[in-house]
Amino acid sequence: MDKVNIGVIGFGYWGPNLVRNFASLPNARVRYIADLSESRRRHAEGLYAGAVEVTPDYRRLLDAPDVAAVCIATPVRTHFGLGKEALEAGKHVFVEKPLTASVAEAEELVALAEAKGRVFMVGHVFEYNPAVNKLKELIHGGELGRVLYVAAARLNLGPFRDDVNALWDLASHDVSILNYLLWRAPEGVSATGACQLTPGIEDVVFVSLFYPDGVMAHCHASWLDPCKVRRITIVGDKKMAVYDDLSTAEPVKIYDRRFARQPYLDTFGEFRLFCASGDIFSPRVDAAEPLKIECADFVGAVQSGRKPRSDGASGLRVVRVLEAAEKSLRQQGARVVIEPPAGSQPAGG
Amino acid sequence: MDKVNIGVIGFGYWGPNLVRNFASLPNARVRYIADLSESRRRHAEGLYAGAVEVTPDYRRLLDAPDVAAVCIATPVRTHFGLGKEALEAGKHVFVEKPLTASVAEAEELVALAEAKGRVFMVGHVFEYNPAVNKLKELIHGGELGRVLYVAAARLNLGPFRDDVNALWDLASHDVSILNYLLWRAPEGVSATGACQLTPGIEDVVFVSLFYPDGVMAHCHASWLDPCKVRRITIVGDKKMAVYDDLSTAEPVKIYDRRFARQPYLDTFGEFRLFCASGDIFSPRVDAAEPLKIECADFVGAVQSGRKPRSDGASGLRVVRVLEAAEKSLRQQGARVVIEPPAGSQPAGG
Amino acid sequence: MDKVNIGVIGFGYWGPNLVRNFASLPNARVRYIADLSESRRRHAEGLYAGAVEVTPDYRRLLDAPDVAAVCIATPVRTHFGLGKEALEAGKHVFVEKPLTASVAEAEELVALAEAKGRVFMVGHVFEYNPAVNKLKELIHGGELGRVLYVAAARLNLGPFRDDVNALWDLASHDVSILNYLLWRAPEGVSATGACQLTPGIEDVVFVSLFYPDGVMAHCHASWLDPCKVRRITIVGDKKMAVYDDLSTAEPVKIYDRRFARQPYLDTFGEFRLFCASGDIFSPRVDAAEPLKIECADFVGAVQSGRKPRSDGASGLRVVRVLEAAEKSLRQQGARVVIEPPAGSQPAGG
Amino acid sequence: MDKVNIGVIGFGYWGPNLVRNFASLPNARVRYIADLSESRRRHAEGLYAGAVEVTPDYRRLLDAPDVAAVCIATPVRTHFGLGKEALEAGKHVFVEKPLTASVAEAEELVALAEAKGRVFMVGHVFEYNPAVNKLKELIHGGELGRVLYVAAARLNLGPFRDDVNALWDLASHDVSILNYLLWRAPEGVSATGACQLTPGIEDVVFVSLFYPDGVMAHCHASWLDPCKVRRITIVGDKKMAVYDDLSTAEPVKIYDRRFARQPYLDTFGEFRLFCASGDIFSPRVDAAEPLKIECADFVGAVQSGRKPRSDGASGLRVVRVLEAAEKSLRQQGARVVIEPPAGSQPAGG
Repeated sequence: MDKVNIGVIGFGYWGPNLVRNFASLPNARVRYIADLSESRRRHAEGLYAGAVEVTPDYRRLLDAPDVAAVCIATPVRTHFGLGKEALEAGKHVFVEKPLTASVAEAEELVALAEAKGRVFMVGHVFEYNPAVNKLKELIHGGELGRVLYVAAARLNLGPFRDDVNALWDLASHDVSILNYLLWRAPEGVSATGACQLTPGIEDVVFVSLFYPDGVMAHCHASWLDPCKVRRITIVGDKKMAVYDDLSTAEPVKIYDRRFARQPYLDTFGEFRLFCASGDIFSPRVDAAEPLKIECADFVGAVQSGRKPRSDGASGLRVVRVLEAAEKSLRQQGARVVIEPPAGSQPAGG
Repeated sequence: MDKVNIGVIGFGYWGPNLVRNFASLPNARVRYIADLSESRRRHAEGLYAGAVEVTPDYRRLLDAPDVAAVCIATPVRTHFGLGKEALEAGKHVFVEKPLTASVAEAEELVALAEAKGRVFMVGHVFEYNPAVNKLKELIHGGELGRVLYVAAARLNLGPFRDDVNALWDLASHDVSILNYLLWRAPEGVSATGACQLTPGIEDVVFVSLFYPDGVMAHCHASWLDPCKVRRITIVGDKKMAVYDDLSTAEPVKIYDRRFARQPYLDTFGEFRLFCASGDIFSPRVDAAEPLKIECADFVGAVQSGRKPRSDGASGLRVVRVLEAAEKSLRQQGARVVIEPPAGSQPAGG
Repeated sequence: MDKVNIGVIGFGYWGPNLVRNFASLPNARVRYIADLSESRRRHAEGLYAGAVEVTPDYRRLLDAPDVAAVCIATPVRTHFGLGKEALEAGKHVFVEKPLTASVAEAEELVALAEAKGRVFMVGHVFEYNPAVNKLKELIHGGELGRVLYVAAARLNLGPFRDDVNALWDLASHDVSILNYLLWRAPEGVSATGACQLTPGIEDVVFVSLFYPDGVMAHCHASWLDPCKVRRITIVGDKKMAVYDDLSTAEPVKIYDRRFARQPYLDTFGEFRLFCASGDIFSPRVDAAEPLKIECADFVGAVQSGRKPRSDGASGLRVVRVLEAAEKSLRQQGARVVIEPPAGSQPAGG
Repeated sequence: MDKVNIGVIGFGYWGPNLVRNFASLPNARVRYIADLSESRRRHAEGLYAGAVEVTPDYRRLLDAPDVAAVCIATPVRTHFGLGKEALEAGKHVFVEKPLTASVAEAEELVALAEAKGRVFMVGHVFEYNPAVNKLKELIHGGELGRVLYVAAARLNLGPFRDDVNALWDLASHDVSILNYLLWRAPEGVSATGACQLTPGIEDVVFVSLFYPDGVMAHCHASWLDPCKVRRITIVGDKKMAVYDDLSTAEPVKIYDRRFARQPYLDTFGEFRLFCASGDIFSPRVDAAEPLKIECADFVGAVQSGRKPRSDGASGLRVVRVLEAAEKSLRQQGARVVIEPPAGSQPAGG
């Protein structure tokens, strides 16, 4: 089968990682890199001189008949316009996360891709992370029991952005992971945050997500923490799991800790739930690079016509949560309802 | 000076710790222990036979003329009634935290203690913790700069309670610490939570506290986490500090990490705030037992007539925040204003 | 059955722990505490006034007809003399570790106890530690496969001693654990060390123990390390286990990491053994206090006439290793043969 | 100034790292890669097609007049032969560590390089590590006081080698670091070890190094440990430092822990040295890649004619220690004297 020719728009912070991974795939070839910045173009030429055409004008690659797929790694506010032009030019499209800056934009792009019959994918890279997929196995195989509560923390000191806040930049990863793991969308959200370094851009956000049956999740995302943390705790009614993305030795730990109601020695009539320590198990997790698996999924989808794992609809479901959370953030935590998409069903139905 | 004779009401979970610490002070003597439970009374007799009178009837010690001070370590809903009787009997009173179940109750007790001229104290034990006092030194000495943001996490698997939720049980510690460290009360609060094991009793809560000038604090308190966490992160505009109550070697770490705005190589016109790693310093922290310092403060206040550190007014300020947070919790995160006390000033004012 | 009356000689660093634990047993009673130091006697009287007779003269308790058992917690050089007098007075005897200062002394006491028909036990407390017994289970149940190699580290900053060096004070614990786990004694030993703070008293020692079939163990013991370490790594040909005595959450971790020989891509003809990461399992370990189990074993042995787990013969086996190691230490590492006891067999033989 | 043309012999485990780093320097160019293995040559061609000539015959690059410097990254037993040929061909030579398989070989090469006036360097990469240089600063600036004792641990599960044992493979790093930090060579050595996976190849070694004035160092090196450890503890009479190569956040920690002799409460006449906890400081350590600094040092030395930091004489000093340790290993720990080089002085002398 022929290699898929790819054009990449944006060679800033993330673009180079995408180019490197697409270039390493046996069934893909990066043909164009477009970036407005001269220095970034020089950087691209240093790395890929000869093999790739580097241009300031993204239209060059939309017009190129031999480019089948376009990958967009630019600031969020440009995702919609570039994505639309690329789809209209008949390209398959990969957009970095978050998919767009609004639900309306995302809905329009998903519909356009559908109409055009093109592959449309968003770069929710954690859905390709082997540790996240181990969690999915644990949840869907029933090992954790019914999930009661999930807490995510994504903290670091920078890198600060001024195009989007920590909600859209960091918490978007956790929302994508939650949607992926729980196979359903939250019904409501309460979010708070603070802008310390850049007026109007929250560098710290706290997001509570409410699911049916009282299940709750919480995301703490921050650019203002001295210690790097990347952790998700899943509490099931049988077992609990903790995913620590910074631990190479034990990224996933499963705690077999039961809680049983038990009368205390006290006869005040008070009962206390008693907790016991228990076994801990850290399954071996494959060390594969998630971004490479993600790129391969996109290229495979282009070749076969099947939907990729993190398709446009899944990116839209994330934006739906983020937009509602943003609304709650503006009201300092008031609960905002997340409307289910008209006539649509979540992926895992 | 004569020893202060003390009667302790409640010998359940916490009472034995109080008795042990009061007993170890050179200027105090525990004369009575009251508990409704026969087995708890037998337990007390096994430990203190001869030296202490153990009784099912707390009125015995309210009536005893040689008992100067009463210590109340019973379920929260009984604090008001017992505290009121004790003050009316002319005793100095120490109440375990949280002070009462409502602001109205706390206000009445504070006023009564004032009228009676008695020492009235609440057991906010972290205000006596050497690591917390090291943080206070760092903040008030200016080493951290202006405090921008505080995040607290207090997680464990149990011990579950069914008289109060995790907000009143666990987050009350963090609210007391925040009030103590920041020397002012928050203006508003947003709280969310979930009840997984006991209907109506939140085992997980998330509390956002809003202060003047955009300063924000957040408390995550949970009985449903497989790993014990007791951590407070304070972000100042000069330095950051992390207090980890579980680390005996390094309970307080100070991070000298600056964030400076700096243009990225990219000429999209985007600027990013750049963060650099830096020195880390862990000051030596005294290993003294906080509960013993707390008990000594109470006994010293009784002997000298001075106010103890965590006096009734400070306990009331905590209840004021908890009551507002509870209200927000019932509305799934809607911001609730915390009214400042009529005509009163925060302690450090 | 009647309670066993116990006299404790030595109320310094370790004696108070022994008294507290014997006192907590339902079938024992501490009747006497002897200590030469007036301040230590006052301390004992403060704690046990009335219940226990405190005396400067240990002969008081050897002469007391109602004292069945004597517990010796004094400096090592006095173990032999006190142990001999106690056995000759017809008492059952518990001696703190190490049993004596030489093999000759230990042999004499073991023979004397045998002749007198008395229980004779040494306080090798780690043989009662639930985590050590979990390791024993793993080894003897075959889960680790054949044990290839054991490495022990016991490091701290102090507490410095000047009666014995770090070999007899610290490494004696590891030798006792190794003898207990491997069920056989080493054949040879090489030891090195350094005296930094007190001339003639090694504060740091390194001990290599050689077993039949090429199995090797190593102990690193130090009073001169800034970080406390208490760790034993056991490498088997199937799995590996690490016991970290400082970890309350995961004291024992089992690593399912295989090593398989595998040709490298290189055709130099070199082969490399390839290692893969694997599952990690932390079994639940009982949180019981080892010292209490040890004290109960002694009292049970006195009542029933059975041998205790860490009996005199086991204490002698440890001294045999320490004496040989000391000889090697004086020769800066030269291998010293450890003679097997005449006509004797190791416990698990 | 002209770029230095380099030929690299050996493209197995380490060679690719050297090529990548030399290629990234502005003043060097890799012209040849030689490897006997066809698959390794194909791998090299895939990465550097066009820019570099890949050959099975290392003589091609010894004969090339435009190659000024040769880098040897082959099995240890070939270092001497290849190094000698390269020096005789007039090339500047960089040899991977350890320099040679014996002192005699190393002495011959050092003399030859001297006679030929060529740069001769060994790849002791840790001498270029910013954390090691921070330790050097602490020692030489006097912050730690007089160094009393150093303990190094370098543990992992594999990668197993069958050309050299763990002494020459792993402990050689620690010997190089010790020579570099302490600026003098040990006088004697005692070493023990075990061969578990490959007969005759120790996969675990313990090396005690004796210095004048009672200073001692110890290296524990192992391919048979389930957990990766890379740690060096330096105990000075003022402060202590721990270097943990696996910690990105705090690679170097300085402990301000004093030990002071202090009478115990006991009047047995025993004195104990008392230890107190103290401040801990983690200085910021530069994140630069040590191998790149090392390669730049070699190229700079070739261009300027100055000696590189880890020159042949320093490599010889390491081999001197390793050869003596190997002799002790064969005698299960007997102390072996390390003869000082005839008429030579250690670097820092």
